[in-house]
Amino acid sequence: MKIAIDGMGGDHSPHVVIEGCIDAIKEYNDIEIIITGPEEVLKREVSKYSYNSEKISILDAKEIISNNEHPVMAIRRKKDSSIYRALELVKKDEADAVISAGSTGAFLAGATLVVGRIKGVNRPALAPVMPGKNGPFMVIDCGANAESKPNNLVQFAKMGEIYFENILKIGNPSIGLINIGAEEEKGNELTKEAHKLLKECDFNFVGNVEPREIPTGDVNVLVCDGFIGNTVLKMYEGVAQTIFSTLKDEIMSSFRTKLGGALLKPVFTKFKKDFDYKEYGGAAFLGVDGICIKAHGSSDSKAIKNAIRQAVTFYENDIIGKIKIHIEEKMV
Amino acid sequence: MKIAIDGMGGDHSPHVVIEGCIDAIKEYNDIEIIITGPEEVLKREVSKYSYNSEKISILDAKEIISNNEHPVMAIRRKKDSSIYRALELVKKDEADAVISAGSTGAFLAGATLVVGRIKGVNRPALAPVMPGKNGPFMVIDCGANAESKPNNLVQFAKMGEIYFENILKIGNPSIGLINIGAEEEKGNELTKEAHKLLKECDFNFVGNVEPREIPTGDVNVLVCDGFIGNTVLKMYEGVAQTIFSTLKDEIMSSFRTKLGGALLKPVFTKFKKDFDYKEYGGAAFLGVDGICIKAHGSSDSKAIKNAIRQAVTFYENDIIGKIKIHIEEKMV
Repeated sequence: MKIAIDGMGGDHSPHVVIEGCIDAIKEYNDIEIIITGPEEVLKREVSKYSYNSEKISILDAKEIISNNEHPVMAIRRKKDSSIYRALELVKKDEADAVISAGSTGAFLAGATLVVGRIKGVNRPALAPVMPGKNGPFMVIDCGANAESKPNNLVQFAKMGEIYFENILKIGNPSIGLINIGAEEEKGNELTKEAHKLLKECDFNFVGNVEPREIPTGDVNVLVCDGFIGNTVLKMYEGVAQTIFSTLKDEIMSSFRTKLGGALLKPVFTKFKKDFDYKEYGGAAFLGVDGICIKAHGSSDSKAIKNAIRQAVTFYENDIIGKIKIHIEEKMV
Repeated sequence: MKIAIDGMGGDHSPHVVIEGCIDAIKEYNDIEIIITGPEEVLKREVSKYSYNSEKISILDAKEIISNNEHPVMAIRRKKDSSIYRALELVKKDEADAVISAGSTGAFLAGATLVVGRIKGVNRPALAPVMPGKNGPFMVIDCGANAESKPNNLVQFAKMGEIYFENILKIGNPSIGLINIGAEEEKGNELTKEAHKLLKECDFNFVGNVEPREIPTGDVNVLVCDGFIGNTVLKMYEGVAQTIFSTLKDEIMSSFRTKLGGALLKPVFTKFKKDFDYKEYGGAAFLGVDGICIKAHGSSDSKAIKNAIRQAVTFYENDIIGKIKIHIEEKMV
């Protein structure tokens, strides 16, 4: 299997990207990685490691797309960017998957424009898996589409189900609709109509899920439009960050509390591990005709390595093929 | 000042409601409270306390609206419910404010139907104030409207500004638009258009605020449609709850961690106090022609007492009058 990686994406590139790739080729057999980006920069970086040089190659790409650029414009103009070159490898069948920790907007726009949608999928969706108290959960869509139609949400649910069953090996996952009330008639036009459609489908549909319940992880696949999903994702991060930074400040404020903090170190470490989004790799962009994985902008080498593992599992389980079969069946 | 209180609203009614009222009349002069609900039940409950009986009266209301009922239907049918009777007192000018910890949907529907909108306000909005790391922030609308138009968000901003300046005494509060990207062109049709309108207004408008930044409290008034606001509010509660229940479980798991937990007790207590939503009373329902305050369903007597204090400040500062003046000026 060949994996293309945007060498210049993310807050700590290229070094964490390179390190993640080096770790991955040591751990997973049968993979080859093509890293895209300015040749000189990348060569200097990989030269710091000893590794099997047949497993990693570099594809020169002179341009870089930053987070501040208009995503669609940037993808259209910068055809020699590290993101574009990586996506192109999948399009040309020179790679089986592509990973980037760079600009989410540019990666999603590029994946749609360059790699293209699976025929029959109306809207590809960004689908991160997050750690919940009682297990992992997926929020789909987390921001690929700022507006969605009810039938889009049904496709999101199906793609999420396929992913959960095959990647996370959780059979017959529960599907919930994120809504601002538990009752069927609650919500806006989108959720009311989507609720009706989801109920008619062959899912393990558990109905509406209020955002308060999301972090428990009791429901596996949570569907919503991209604006809501992105809000959920960012609130999850923001609230956790605020709580822990506040606790940390307070713990450091006296001898007693410092001692308490030291005694609770295993608790905080376990918490950090249990709620580490990096464990699940990146966010899959489901519905495009190729394995496209968006790693978090703040990814470290472990997150990159896990995104590579995720791409491998994705490939071995032929998720794209399974989505295609489902969509075709529905269209006949 | 006369305040009407739904005696049967909330998870712990009527006892916490009564207790909150008793505490309030002891602390605030010049208030009289009318508690609505089944006369016998309420009389038995108040008889447990010694208090100035001129300050509290009971208005019989035989029906109760539960959280499971369809809000609009319930308000239309149950004219002898504790919520309806309390709202009616404001409509008839027999009370200056109304507070309920009962069904949010029924209270908002009732406030709109019975008390009525301020002329010129298109959509009243639910506006809780929440504790952030660096100060309190308001999210408006938090669920009164499942769909909003761009100009509604401008009115939300103005009402939030008036509230912040007069109740929280924070002059020229910053106004932000909740959006899934910091750049102006990000988001859906609603946020793109609302951004343009807000920029043209005479606000201290700081632009888009990503949900990740909300819990810091660095921006005072955050405007959004009710679906988003409700999602933000419930994620805030849900994530915090999940984190603390997980930490608690872990702390109780060994002697060492129990000891650490005991040493950190002041930290957790301070945190709980600093992030106690009850400090700010209930959520004001802004844009209706009367002081309507929705207390949290899980309110304790302190939350009820604070909601009463909030109603007093609201009244003394004539927020309704100030909203009316602003709306009239805009309509001339």
